[in-house]
Amino acid sequence: MIGKVKVGGFSPISVQSMTTTRTDDVKATVEEIKKLISAGCDIVRLGIPDTLSAEAIKEIKKYVDIPLVADIHFDYRLALKAVDSGIDALRINPGNLRNVREVREVARACRGKNIPIRIGVNGGSLDKRKYPHPTAEALCDSAMGHINLLENEGFRDIKVSLKSSDVKVMVEANRIFSERNDYPLHLGVTEAGGYEQALIKGSAGIGSLLLDGIGDTIRFSITSDPVKEVVAARTLLRVLGLRREGIEIISCPICARHEFNVEKVVDELTRKTKRFKKYMKVAVMGCVVNGPGEAMESDIGIAVGARGAVLFKKGSLIRKVSKENILKVLLREIELFQNEKDFSGRN
Amino acid sequence: MIGKVKVGGFSPISVQSMTTTRTDDVKATVEEIKKLISAGCDIVRLGIPDTLSAEAIKEIKKYVDIPLVADIHFDYRLALKAVDSGIDALRINPGNLRNVREVREVARACRGKNIPIRIGVNGGSLDKRKYPHPTAEALCDSAMGHINLLENEGFRDIKVSLKSSDVKVMVEANRIFSERNDYPLHLGVTEAGGYEQALIKGSAGIGSLLLDGIGDTIRFSITSDPVKEVVAARTLLRVLGLRREGIEIISCPICARHEFNVEKVVDELTRKTKRFKKYMKVAVMGCVVNGPGEAMESDIGIAVGARGAVLFKKGSLIRKVSKENILKVLLREIELFQNEKDFSGRN
Repeated sequence: MIGKVKVGGFSPISVQSMTTTRTDDVKATVEEIKKLISAGCDIVRLGIPDTLSAEAIKEIKKYVDIPLVADIHFDYRLALKAVDSGIDALRINPGNLRNVREVREVARACRGKNIPIRIGVNGGSLDKRKYPHPTAEALCDSAMGHINLLENEGFRDIKVSLKSSDVKVMVEANRIFSERNDYPLHLGVTEAGGYEQALIKGSAGIGSLLLDGIGDTIRFSITSDPVKEVVAARTLLRVLGLRREGIEIISCPICARHEFNVEKVVDELTRKTKRFKKYMKVAVMGCVVNGPGEAMESDIGIAVGARGAVLFKKGSLIRKVSKENILKVLLREIELFQNEKDFSGRN
Repeated sequence: MIGKVKVGGFSPISVQSMTTTRTDDVKATVEEIKKLISAGCDIVRLGIPDTLSAEAIKEIKKYVDIPLVADIHFDYRLALKAVDSGIDALRINPGNLRNVREVREVARACRGKNIPIRIGVNGGSLDKRKYPHPTAEALCDSAMGHINLLENEGFRDIKVSLKSSDVKVMVEANRIFSERNDYPLHLGVTEAGGYEQALIKGSAGIGSLLLDGIGDTIRFSITSDPVKEVVAARTLLRVLGLRREGIEIISCPICARHEFNVEKVVDELTRKTKRFKKYMKVAVMGCVVNGPGEAMESDIGIAVGARGAVLFKKGSLIRKVSKENILKVLLREIELFQNEKDFSGRN
């Protein structure tokens, strides 16, 4: 448990991100956390570079109801201070918190308050003296060192992350680790770069592990607004079938066969349906090749041909739709679907 | 061989995309192909919905020097016409070209001219009478049916694609197929939707297969400008270490520790270095936690701390850089690196 959120086992894969504000600027930090919550973040991490930041946690927690994780580097006293301030979890970095006595002291403080610790190994901050290069084995070995330290204190409320900016190394490290250990894994490709590249690296790395059933909580790392990290993470979980929430749009690339402006409809649809929570597939298909097939497999689908568009609902052809009305009809049908109660009584 | 491009075996993973113009509009089609070539496309597919489009291939080939694939659905005579017009390869769809005699005739025409055929199976256009739902096994089975048809004609110049708009189905289908067959695989998550979702679905699906050594040529499907498909595909290959070309930027997400505007520098850098071909890693790191480590593992790296920035080259600390000059210094160093001849004599 990280605060109220369960991580590991059969609990849903949770989404994490990190604030960009100075943590001791409580007002700005609370505002950013609220934005992350609105976007669907489950757990928020805060950088704790100094005492003022560690002390600010107490104040921040008055205004937001989401588990907070303190990101600790170099100085174990900041970890102790964060624990005092009511933090829900710690992230410590074996690469820069190497003093055995200090790590033990942190473990004892956490055990007293049921605060879990993430051992957050990162290729860029491995102990260079022990590991000249950040290989997959080096990442695993570094994590195991700290796991042993904590286990020797009887502390087992542990989560592990093995991050690298190299997708292959990150995937390999997590595969190796998960074969040898049962601790929950926090997945991320770190320092993944600007928006597009980061989406690609994160999806390939995190996605391929999730497809193999590895990973319990995820963070996209993007050099940009962290709200984008949350949206990307939720989209990945949705398209992998791991969080049945929100709208997945099935739409064709544009080709010589397209019969209307698919891109415009998809863009508008994406923008106007962000608020919907119930999972559904919506197909917007521009031609007769895959159109009817995809539309039939979706909850709501439009397939367009030379003679006009047809609307499908849950596998059945409903009626013709004029091309000008496609967006309007789709929005109305999505709204209807979202307001329908399903048999489980959920909305 | 698809024209001059080798697909399969140990040849580099090639990048494909598809034109969005009417194929019989030769001027517009040639213009778009040239844009795709500039973006790094290796193979271009053209929709051939009618006779005029099939005939236009001859004219288009006069203006562009890239292998062209004709996308054929429903009507085998368009395949024969495309072969006559000098197409480099065909894509046929077992879901809508089911007449055995017709498929045989296409195979004979292709064999005479050494034209390979892609059997392009797609969840949305499976034969509904045989396969009520587009499962991974259904995709494989549909491909095997057409492989057998072609093999019975002595035709083995075959490539296969098993596409689904469901990432899990697509990954599973390709895994199953690659265990049973040696034919080269063209990978893609189809109808992947608008830009962001398509990047995420494509990277997760294509990426996880490539990480396991499955796949020979790839296409991102994006409901947008196909140039974006090419850029995404090349970025994925680059970050997976499969095409050592272009610049990979390692940059941290923004957090409470950041000491300068990483996002702005990364955006500018991405924009201004698109033209460079030689592979390199450039680290732009905003703090001291992972900064020096990542900078040291990169060809060029900047790590910023409270006391200013430092420049690293190939693992060595070179000198201090003032924060205002970070972008300028990086651009100059990248340019120098790009103009350096490496030991292989390549530039």
